[in-house]
Amino acid sequence: MKKTLSIAVIGLGQRGMGLLRPILRMKDVNVVAVCDSYQDRIEQAQKLSKKLGRDLPRGYVDYKELVEKESIEAVIISCSWKCHTEISLYCMEKGIPVGCEVGGVHDINECWALVNTYEKTQTPYMFLENCCYGEYELACLNMVKKGLFGKVVSCEGGYKHDLRDEISGGALNRHYRLEEYINSNCENYPTHEIGPIAKILDINRGNRMVELVSISSKAVGLNEYVKDNLDKEHIKKLEDIVFKQGDIVNTLIKCENGETISISLDTTLPRPYSRGFTVHGTRMLYSEEGNYYFDDKNKLHKAFHWIPSKFFNNGRKMARKYRHEIWKNFKRHPVKSGHGGMDYLVLRAFFESVLQGHKVMPLDVYDAVTWMAITALSAKSIETGTIVEFPDFTRGAYKERKTEKFNVWYI
Amino acid sequence: MKKTLSIAVIGLGQRGMGLLRPILRMKDVNVVAVCDSYQDRIEQAQKLSKKLGRDLPRGYVDYKELVEKESIEAVIISCSWKCHTEISLYCMEKGIPVGCEVGGVHDINECWALVNTYEKTQTPYMFLENCCYGEYELACLNMVKKGLFGKVVSCEGGYKHDLRDEISGGALNRHYRLEEYINSNCENYPTHEIGPIAKILDINRGNRMVELVSISSKAVGLNEYVKDNLDKEHIKKLEDIVFKQGDIVNTLIKCENGETISISLDTTLPRPYSRGFTVHGTRMLYSEEGNYYFDDKNKLHKAFHWIPSKFFNNGRKMARKYRHEIWKNFKRHPVKSGHGGMDYLVLRAFFESVLQGHKVMPLDVYDAVTWMAITALSAKSIETGTIVEFPDFTRGAYKERKTEKFNVWYI
Repeated sequence: MKKTLSIAVIGLGQRGMGLLRPILRMKDVNVVAVCDSYQDRIEQAQKLSKKLGRDLPRGYVDYKELVEKESIEAVIISCSWKCHTEISLYCMEKGIPVGCEVGGVHDINECWALVNTYEKTQTPYMFLENCCYGEYELACLNMVKKGLFGKVVSCEGGYKHDLRDEISGGALNRHYRLEEYINSNCENYPTHEIGPIAKILDINRGNRMVELVSISSKAVGLNEYVKDNLDKEHIKKLEDIVFKQGDIVNTLIKCENGETISISLDTTLPRPYSRGFTVHGTRMLYSEEGNYYFDDKNKLHKAFHWIPSKFFNNGRKMARKYRHEIWKNFKRHPVKSGHGGMDYLVLRAFFESVLQGHKVMPLDVYDAVTWMAITALSAKSIETGTIVEFPDFTRGAYKERKTEKFNVWYI
Repeated sequence: MKKTLSIAVIGLGQRGMGLLRPILRMKDVNVVAVCDSYQDRIEQAQKLSKKLGRDLPRGYVDYKELVEKESIEAVIISCSWKCHTEISLYCMEKGIPVGCEVGGVHDINECWALVNTYEKTQTPYMFLENCCYGEYELACLNMVKKGLFGKVVSCEGGYKHDLRDEISGGALNRHYRLEEYINSNCENYPTHEIGPIAKILDINRGNRMVELVSISSKAVGLNEYVKDNLDKEHIKKLEDIVFKQGDIVNTLIKCENGETISISLDTTLPRPYSRGFTVHGTRMLYSEEGNYYFDDKNKLHKAFHWIPSKFFNNGRKMARKYRHEIWKNFKRHPVKSGHGGMDYLVLRAFFESVLQGHKVMPLDVYDAVTWMAITALSAKSIETGTIVEFPDFTRGAYKERKTEKFNVWYI
């Protein structure tokens, strides 16, 4: 087993820098190179490395040159959504284990290319879906595996995040979301909620998603926001833009074993942040407000425990009682990092599995393509007004596949 | 204008008795006859009338005989869902104003029969959807009409009511829900949430529902419940039953003006009661937990008011501030009645509009059929695996139709 990893980080925007910070604090990981199209971002990354007492990573604007010149043992891909697949394929071909940031794909062929390249090269590919390692998500998974929910029947989730400021900001800064919202109409960011749900429903491991339908609302949120909230210069840059992306996209998915999944994209209207994570079984409901509601087997008829959120939130108590092993360890050695610890955890899952020499990663290429494909499938469903079939990226292997248990990170 | 109404109540089960109670307290309404297939229910209704100091209504087991022999000026139909249309049509043909309880219809032809008969006879038909007169629903409608939500983009709702006890109880008592859950798979009870949503979205009044898709989960909740919770005798009656009705049915609806509606039926798994009423506009969100979240126009960028439910519920405060005229009146003269006052209000809406001699009722036949049709359309969508078109029951008239404002009850 290797003791240390030399890695590169490709893509140094908001997300790339967010990942770089916890990585630079890991003693067994050396960031030897960084890459971004913008020189100022490279300098920012180097400055941060220096500040945290690490060796200065070499900077590249061309990722192919980086791969050519550096001898790296893993790569973190955190560029814009559009380039994820191209860079992942290139690195896999070169035998460099890939940790790829999340996002959806607009073209289902990208999914197949990832699967085919992985199957050909056997280069490890990990999908860095941090929410799979969320405290509540893992506690819920733990409780599902212990049978506390009975049979799970239905799950819900969403990416409910008011991004109006960030998206409209794209007219002034370099954020790529603006372009997405002008040119596409789909469930453009499904993985934060679908990742944890897929783990709970054993997707690609005895179960699979079989069909999907999406319906989109009109697109008025961004235009109203611009008109009401921005300054004159900013309004001028945006006022004539017609956004294709509907404000709300609702998507329903049916699974082979009979479960339904309901997710929604909700990013251009006022709202508090929520992933709307909900798991509903024959014996328990976990709802997004952080409450568990369950049958009490010791009493008969109408015997339920429910502590309404108005009075008391029992989610925290239950998350503690059924804390996942990963969080037990993490709570003992807490590391400051982004998104309440999830970023740190998903990175450790990747690095430790690569260090231990595993080929199959905890969130593998089949997970990644199944979750990302929702973007392309939802666009097709909205455009054609039909329910669309879900491809089986495992080519039938899901029937026999089980979760590998190489280490604690395999959930 | 008439001063009093002589009426009959047809259907004296749980719901019929629930409506009879507040009606018997109304001085301007005389219940002269009641009808039910079961003699013991008739006696129960007569007993209640006596107890509340009213004249004893005559009892009938055949509603046609009742209509023949009694001279009634309005009828309340509160029998099982299946008989609503048959009795409504019969009474309309006889010129007796109909107040019909809610439920879905399994056959879209029933909807057309109601429309055609109404258009031919011009007999008033009112749909007794009590939730349209709910305190929060009306406050929300009030705020929408005042423009506080900006443009409304999306609404959500559900009938989320753990009925496992009631449904499985049908094996011992006479509740008809059991049969429904054995024989059908659909959104079987859409109107409690769709009524208030339709009013907010001006459905049949400048807007209409154009397409619908439903996806159903497997049906395991009732079987698990029976096995886990009932006594031996009861289990024996139910253990071999295969339920057709999925535990969760998710339905998405697209409106002509670009809004989306997401509703769910959730009645056979453990959960607290909720109608999940959610209204999302470009300036405000009202969410099911009873919180309003809104843009604050006095500040720029990221300036929102949000008081999370964990700390404080601002729904009550907003409902008071923007109380609908109907609730202002009601709060001054509160009358004890079912479902927090809604039953009383919807009955008054019907009786007062009939007393005033109006032909078009506050919740009219086009409202009723549009909302009830969701049951038939969802069954078709689930069965065929397709998105289905929504009929326009107004035959194009929705484009010009406006809400009549004959009195305060027309919302």
